[in-house]
Amino acid sequence: MMRENVAVPKMSNEHLRYLSKLKQKKFRLQEGLVIVEGKRTLEQLFAWDIKAKELYIVESEPIVSAAISYTVSEQGMKRLCDSEQPQKIAGLFSLPKPRKIAFKKAFYLDDISDPGNLGTIFRIAAAFNIDCLILSPKTCEISSPKVIRASLGAVYKVPFFFCEMEKLQELKAHIFALDMQGKIPLTNFAPPSEPYIVALGNEAKGISSSILKIAEETLCIPMPGEMESLNVSVSSAILAYTLSLN
Amino acid sequence: MMRENVAVPKMSNEHLRYLSKLKQKKFRLQEGLVIVEGKRTLEQLFAWDIKAKELYIVESEPIVSAAISYTVSEQGMKRLCDSEQPQKIAGLFSLPKPRKIAFKKAFYLDDISDPGNLGTIFRIAAAFNIDCLILSPKTCEISSPKVIRASLGAVYKVPFFFCEMEKLQELKAHIFALDMQGKIPLTNFAPPSEPYIVALGNEAKGISSSILKIAEETLCIPMPGEMESLNVSVSSAILAYTLSLN
Repeated sequence: MMRENVAVPKMSNEHLRYLSKLKQKKFRLQEGLVIVEGKRTLEQLFAWDIKAKELYIVESEPIVSAAISYTVSEQGMKRLCDSEQPQKIAGLFSLPKPRKIAFKKAFYLDDISDPGNLGTIFRIAAAFNIDCLILSPKTCEISSPKVIRASLGAVYKVPFFFCEMEKLQELKAHIFALDMQGKIPLTNFAPPSEPYIVALGNEAKGISSSILKIAEETLCIPMPGEMESLNVSVSSAILAYTLSLN
Repeated sequence: MMRENVAVPKMSNEHLRYLSKLKQKKFRLQEGLVIVEGKRTLEQLFAWDIKAKELYIVESEPIVSAAISYTVSEQGMKRLCDSEQPQKIAGLFSLPKPRKIAFKKAFYLDDISDPGNLGTIFRIAAAFNIDCLILSPKTCEISSPKVIRASLGAVYKVPFFFCEMEKLQELKAHIFALDMQGKIPLTNFAPPSEPYIVALGNEAKGISSSILKIAEETLCIPMPGEMESLNVSVSSAILAYTLSLN
């Protein structure tokens, strides 16, 4: 054990200073790099064969992998990681990159503003095989540590690209909108055999009137209880699950 | 407008100091009071006829209701509210109280530790008529502002009570457990006509072995994609929705 510990160098103060600046959005985007923290997320990324550029572990921990680049103090890990109580392991990754793909089944996310919601929807999309997520340009930053954490790494797995709502029709897919006041309950919805997109609205504003104008049909989640609305990640979950059963 | 503003007194510094202490869990539990912020949550509570003891509005805002007790400065509102960017309106409420009820369909939440998840599950339970939520004693504080906000007030609507796992069988209900490795896919699950409970596990640890021992059957959410697991509030959403269709 001792020998293994000796073999992994301690991170220099200079490197730590550089990496800790990646907590700032501006610096992340400039460098194209982000710190991803936590064992579960890293394991999920490795299962998908998504590789870290460097791996860091708290110095009191056993060296779990030959791929560990540096040890850091607990304090150092706090400087690297965005969460208040970071885990013992973190890695350096390129930012998740948009890529336009041919899809059969996609979601359009209209100005999702909460990082937790955005990440959760990526995780849902990976779980239920949504082919890709199409994001409005005003969506919150996809490469923020909060989004990556909530997605359990799925921002690296699920293809995504940006598209203005006005250009959605150019994608030549059927467009549907999910709305509390939608006409077709999910239970009655038969998805088309051609490519299709279901649009989901912003947390506060709901689905926008511009989306409603271009949507072929509006769908709703039948909700027997007295509740004003559902959280957008909850709606996404029910929608993605239901579509996976077709 | 001016006259209406004059009619509502400005909150005294003394009262503000007292109320701002309610951000501390200890003080909340001692006083039995909590500040609930935000227009949407308050509107949902009023729709359920759940009344505020006092209502506060930022002094620059129009007095939207005769029920407003005091105006406060923007700074004052920040001292009252737990969120970083509080909304313009907040109210003072009694803490949500546990009550044991006869149920047909309940969830057992085993040590949910994230306030966002706990609140979201209450909101889901209200939306899909889960009769009550049974909470393990180690569940995170239900009356924290974060939980109340994520629940959109549903902690006041959905009956809940605490129960140790060891005493769950005394409730004389069928017990099922939702687990990634569960045997019966939700799509094949026919809920019994007698009262039943579905248990959901902690975010990090998943379903506990003690629950698996007392569960009649284990259920799973069929998940075609490559993803280690689902977030517990996402699982709850799919489960509650599916059960509402029976």
